[in-house]
Amino acid sequence: MRKVAIVGGGATRCGKRKASWRDLVQEAGKAMFESVDNLSPKDVDSLIVGAAQPERFVFQAHVAPMVAEYLGITPRKVIARTELMCASGQAAIRYAWACVATGLADVAVAFGVEKMFMPDMAEAQTNMTCVLDREWDGVNGLSAPPFFAMTAQRHMHEYGTTKDQMALVSVKNHHYSSLNPFAQFQKEITVEDVLKSVAIAPPLNLFDCSGITDGAAGVILVPAEDAKKYADTPMYVIGSGQASIGNAINNFASLTDWVPLKIAAKEALRSAKITLDNIDIAEVHDCFTISEIIEYEAFGWCEKGEGGKFIEDGQPYIGGKVAVNPRGGLLGCGHPLGATAILQAIDILQQFKGAVPKGRLVNDAEIAVAHNLSGAANVHSIVIYSR
Amino acid sequence: MRKVAIVGGGATRCGKRKASWRDLVQEAGKAMFESVDNLSPKDVDSLIVGAAQPERFVFQAHVAPMVAEYLGITPRKVIARTELMCASGQAAIRYAWACVATGLADVAVAFGVEKMFMPDMAEAQTNMTCVLDREWDGVNGLSAPPFFAMTAQRHMHEYGTTKDQMALVSVKNHHYSSLNPFAQFQKEITVEDVLKSVAIAPPLNLFDCSGITDGAAGVILVPAEDAKKYADTPMYVIGSGQASIGNAINNFASLTDWVPLKIAAKEALRSAKITLDNIDIAEVHDCFTISEIIEYEAFGWCEKGEGGKFIEDGQPYIGGKVAVNPRGGLLGCGHPLGATAILQAIDILQQFKGAVPKGRLVNDAEIAVAHNLSGAANVHSIVIYSR
Repeated sequence: MRKVAIVGGGATRCGKRKASWRDLVQEAGKAMFESVDNLSPKDVDSLIVGAAQPERFVFQAHVAPMVAEYLGITPRKVIARTELMCASGQAAIRYAWACVATGLADVAVAFGVEKMFMPDMAEAQTNMTCVLDREWDGVNGLSAPPFFAMTAQRHMHEYGTTKDQMALVSVKNHHYSSLNPFAQFQKEITVEDVLKSVAIAPPLNLFDCSGITDGAAGVILVPAEDAKKYADTPMYVIGSGQASIGNAINNFASLTDWVPLKIAAKEALRSAKITLDNIDIAEVHDCFTISEIIEYEAFGWCEKGEGGKFIEDGQPYIGGKVAVNPRGGLLGCGHPLGATAILQAIDILQQFKGAVPKGRLVNDAEIAVAHNLSGAANVHSIVIYSR
Repeated sequence: MRKVAIVGGGATRCGKRKASWRDLVQEAGKAMFESVDNLSPKDVDSLIVGAAQPERFVFQAHVAPMVAEYLGITPRKVIARTELMCASGQAAIRYAWACVATGLADVAVAFGVEKMFMPDMAEAQTNMTCVLDREWDGVNGLSAPPFFAMTAQRHMHEYGTTKDQMALVSVKNHHYSSLNPFAQFQKEITVEDVLKSVAIAPPLNLFDCSGITDGAAGVILVPAEDAKKYADTPMYVIGSGQASIGNAINNFASLTDWVPLKIAAKEALRSAKITLDNIDIAEVHDCFTISEIIEYEAFGWCEKGEGGKFIEDGQPYIGGKVAVNPRGGLLGCGHPLGATAILQAIDILQQFKGAVPKGRLVNDAEIAVAHNLSGAANVHSIVIYSR
């Protein structure tokens, strides 16, 4: 296996964009190619596109060749779209990485895009009901917010976690996203703002939930030995892990014990030949505030049930035990499904370059983990990057 | 890169099935596991699911973990769904192959499934309009049948190809599918049947078009060195190629010259270290009769424009220059999008084992190519297998 580097990346600003699906692709593609030297679209031999639901959001299938067309790429080694709902972009990075690692590809783009704002937002909401198992869970009204609400209730019951502690996650991530010009939400919020925001599914209020978001992003992967041709400061894929249990929520022995995350994290650390203590930055999947709290625990930064206290003690802030979501997370930056993992990768690259605003810069960061969950937290996908 | 083997596979019968999407998955999964020795669902560490449009056909996303659940698999190395419309299954095989080749996975399932029959078939037809670029081509009424009809008209105009010659492709493939118990259409037809069948998009009649089909299929990939543990006669992935141009049809310089197919075929042969003459069986993507005629030419079994004469001379029959679609093709077996490439792979494995009915057995076949196109023939995906 060849070692693989990410040499550059570009993204749109995320949010409710007055831009079509195509506009988003082109905007991110232009930024992506401008981020590297000595590389033009014609040099790219492979393209993997992460997209969760273009068939429903923009009624367009076969999106990989469309992205190729709008980027001016003519893939001649590998082309595919990956779908793994909220982790679709991470699946794209992992497939592109495998292609370059094997030698199937020499210059691969992993791209993510989602246009989620629709003329009729009721339709967008309906679309999201097919993420969980529609016949077992959807029929009972279970989409993502009520699932994570149940999870939060259970965590509160089992461990005494409070709404205030959950709110602190959102406060932290909005703090960092206020310093991120690509973020959907660029305003600081307070615990009180979270607690007073409209109830979505108790105990989760509006600011406990990541947004509906339009956005696109792409990164370029090459063999590590070629990386310096394209960038002074590439970053390297040093490990990865992924694990899942079935889609219906009756597969869980416990709502608050994310076994597949533990398996994926263990494999990612093993393959990267590092320990948890080596990680300087963690971009983890805070689709809801409770998610990030359980992730502190499942990764092992704190004991099971101590996630609430971990944020209360300021441990996931820059300068704490580990900097969690210094990009601003999904809560602050928005969550354009297929693009999210690519946006995480780009921000990590910017961190390694020291090119992010001061208040959210992790000094001398060497190693970062990027994590996405999908469905009812039943699939977890992880990539570890090094400077 | 490790050499990779396919040790077994199983499928549903294809057609208009009184079976749900889940039923199809389980039926194929059961057959798949029964096809191998010493291997149970819990041994599978990775799963790639090829599916073209479950979001629209059965309103279900995040299908990879659902397939895992219904097969009793708990992926702990790699899980994803690939979408490349009609080549979604080939994309799954290629990704699974890359995973095993790199060592990311040790036992991977490539699975394909599509439930295309809907309560309202007008909705199924509408779904298929988002395959081509909806804003450039779909808006002008261009879905697959009119696109391939234009291609056929152009081929007739440029090279004098006739409707009778195209009909012969369907006659051949229905002949072979009449000997295939998994096929959607198991009756022989005549040239007259094709010419008298209802016009779909001139010059294409009903029997010039592959069907709407329900079906599922899965294959199991392992490192070649482990293959004999699971099967007496595994087959090996020895090469692969893929190429594309953008999705809108204005990317073509010529409708009848499938440049990406030529690029993909050249790369597949190069990577397999063989020439075209080494190929005994060709399972190629005959979504329409004209497709197979152009494929004879683009692969190079005959000169450009001579595809019509090639079938007229009986060259693509068993015993001719190359056995093309002895499975019965998409025309005879149906085309359950995501499952199609998996079905091709399974039939090739059965051919290598000598386990297909006599009238369609290619004696002593050593090497086979499997090909799928997607969209407006703008992406071509190829895998080469050896005994």
